[in-house]
Amino acid sequence: MLNKNTHILNEAVITITSDWGNRDYYRAAVEGALLKRIPGCRIIAVSHEISCFDMLEASYTLRNAWQNFPDGSIHIMAVRSEASIEHQHVLVVYGNHYFIGADNGIFGLLFDEKPEKIIAIDIHQDSSVFTFPSRDVFVPVAAHISEGKNIEELGQVQTSFKEHIPYKPVIEKDLIKGIVIHIDRYGNAITNITQAQFKKIAKNRRFEIQTNRNSVNRVVEAYDDVPEGEMLAVFGSTGLLEIAINQGRAKDLLGVKFKDTIRIEFE
Amino acid sequence: MLNKNTHILNEAVITITSDWGNRDYYRAAVEGALLKRIPGCRIIAVSHEISCFDMLEASYTLRNAWQNFPDGSIHIMAVRSEASIEHQHVLVVYGNHYFIGADNGIFGLLFDEKPEKIIAIDIHQDSSVFTFPSRDVFVPVAAHISEGKNIEELGQVQTSFKEHIPYKPVIEKDLIKGIVIHIDRYGNAITNITQAQFKKIAKNRRFEIQTNRNSVNRVVEAYDDVPEGEMLAVFGSTGLLEIAINQGRAKDLLGVKFKDTIRIEFE
Amino acid sequence: MLNKNTHILNEAVITITSDWGNRDYYRAAVEGALLKRIPGCRIIAVSHEISCFDMLEASYTLRNAWQNFPDGSIHIMAVRSEASIEHQHVLVVYGNHYFIGADNGIFGLLFDEKPEKIIAIDIHQDSSVFTFPSRDVFVPVAAHISEGKNIEELGQVQTSFKEHIPYKPVIEKDLIKGIVIHIDRYGNAITNITQAQFKKIAKNRRFEIQTNRNSVNRVVEAYDDVPEGEMLAVFGSTGLLEIAINQGRAKDLLGVKFKDTIRIEFE
Repeated sequence: MLNKNTHILNEAVITITSDWGNRDYYRAAVEGALLKRIPGCRIIAVSHEISCFDMLEASYTLRNAWQNFPDGSIHIMAVRSEASIEHQHVLVVYGNHYFIGADNGIFGLLFDEKPEKIIAIDIHQDSSVFTFPSRDVFVPVAAHISEGKNIEELGQVQTSFKEHIPYKPVIEKDLIKGIVIHIDRYGNAITNITQAQFKKIAKNRRFEIQTNRNSVNRVVEAYDDVPEGEMLAVFGSTGLLEIAINQGRAKDLLGVKFKDTIRIEFE
Repeated sequence: MLNKNTHILNEAVITITSDWGNRDYYRAAVEGALLKRIPGCRIIAVSHEISCFDMLEASYTLRNAWQNFPDGSIHIMAVRSEASIEHQHVLVVYGNHYFIGADNGIFGLLFDEKPEKIIAIDIHQDSSVFTFPSRDVFVPVAAHISEGKNIEELGQVQTSFKEHIPYKPVIEKDLIKGIVIHIDRYGNAITNITQAQFKKIAKNRRFEIQTNRNSVNRVVEAYDDVPEGEMLAVFGSTGLLEIAINQGRAKDLLGVKFKDTIRIEFE
Repeated sequence: MLNKNTHILNEAVITITSDWGNRDYYRAAVEGALLKRIPGCRIIAVSHEISCFDMLEASYTLRNAWQNFPDGSIHIMAVRSEASIEHQHVLVVYGNHYFIGADNGIFGLLFDEKPEKIIAIDIHQDSSVFTFPSRDVFVPVAAHISEGKNIEELGQVQTSFKEHIPYKPVIEKDLIKGIVIHIDRYGNAITNITQAQFKKIAKNRRFEIQTNRNSVNRVVEAYDDVPEGEMLAVFGSTGLLEIAINQGRAKDLLGVKFKDTIRIEFE
């Protein structure tokens, strides 16, 4: 009766991004199903606290996490995962990683380039329940992949997925106008302005970064580059411009909010 | 000094259901103790955010999670886990799974059938502290099980555990009257009415499902079967009737609350 | 393209203590980087819900967790982890465990004795980003350790770390005066008074433990030693005196708060 896995364990790395929260049984149900189908797999929570149904937050979070994982990792996107006639379940192969979810536009927010392969998933699911595809469809798909089987057995190859236009900064000769796309637990405001965009326009000119009420005229490399309690701008680990306060909460102290405009004016 | 486990690793799957929260050190202490005693074990959180001391929520959560796990999995119930003269620590074997907790009525809420075996745990605990049985009693019990030892060495076999009567729906010829037993993170209201109970009374008759203020007269198979923002009833992954709103919060928009009555009237 | 780890897996146990929260991608980024560098490692969250920048809470939490883990475990302290000229990154070896963090005083709060070894970390980090040392510095250090390499290759041995004076109780002939250093999810108030300090002064005398508004004159061994709803004092799993209510919230019902004075008067 014991769970003696004398066979060789599969060390597949599988991540889950969801809006289930950490209180309910949904996460455990999927993790249990994964361990039953893929004994030995490693399951990592990207986040289970995505705001309910929020594709932008879900894609922001997975987009910044997945590249840290080993090649061959399988990423389950459990936000808005129900299939419908317009939104098929798909497996996307991108950068030697596997992504499983519903084709509702979320994949267009995750990747910058064309994916290596897209498969429209067409398998018999594990139960007669249609409300829990992460457990009943995505787990068997992950098992299929981690067993090294041909992924084209999972369904038909398709050439594109649904697009969803991300918020992109407005870029002019002497101006970049972006928005705050995320506020993290520290109250840091992460914008949609990339370091590459900034460098291309800046050309070593002087500049001013403006929030609603405040401004800074340099970009630092680390939070501690300014005294405690002082405002700063930094290209953080996302590669995106962040407005922060060293050891403090930019959200509260500077009054920056989700979707606020952030302007960079160049001399 | 390195942790080189040259011996064969034990791939026991161990779950924990607790009301410790995810902020405090309690969860890490138990997970560390498990990894020390059972190197290689897989530890899955069913939930650490059960409302403090709430046996109903704890049993609802583990009840819906455990069957997804592989045979031989060990489930630690850390809610109300202190032993007393009336509430012994017990190991329950049910459906080829192991459950460890205090015999305070919680097991009566977890299972539908008689368990395969019940053992009253009688071992020397790991410390002189009596406030942390999950670490000091349940971890050594889990180690004993996962080493494949005879579980009857853990204590005396007993023939029953304490019962705790769950809320059951009232079922009449043309009526099922249940209650809301859980509200999940989406604001979905899960009732105590099972699909089997519904089918037995419905016999393909027309019906109306009534909350305090609203009603629907069909059961759908998936949230997306109704337009966004519309009320629906569905037998979800629990097998229980759920009142929900597609992409919305039934709790807020329909005003359904924990313990509200839900009526199904049949023609 | 699959993640087939045919090499021997490293079973290093690695814990993380952070203030990232469980919503953001930071935790997943570090866990992914760990699995990429150390395939097979076990990653345990001590907590990701430490109050932002709170060294006292971070040290309280890890201090009570780490000894439960197997020898050779690696503990990443991700709270206030940015390096600066005053706060170098260090690796501390203590009690056959490894601790990685910034030398900002936090290690002085973690240990009672002198550590076995302190290394000032001096390695090339994994990226050009300086805001995410847990991923870009601590992960490669953990990989170095778990590969069994000489830790002195990581940097120069130093003889001490920064001290940070913890709140210590005032101890007189007939009085111990401590403070509440933590309130847990149950509303239990954990003080800084140790069982050893208590025993040394008590010498079997009668005593009274006083909060702002209430008092008890005995110490019990378990919460259930008093009737439900009643106040109690217990030396809990931390070894520290706790003020609690059996099945209730001392914080709310007794009005005890973080940093409140707790007095024990002896006859």
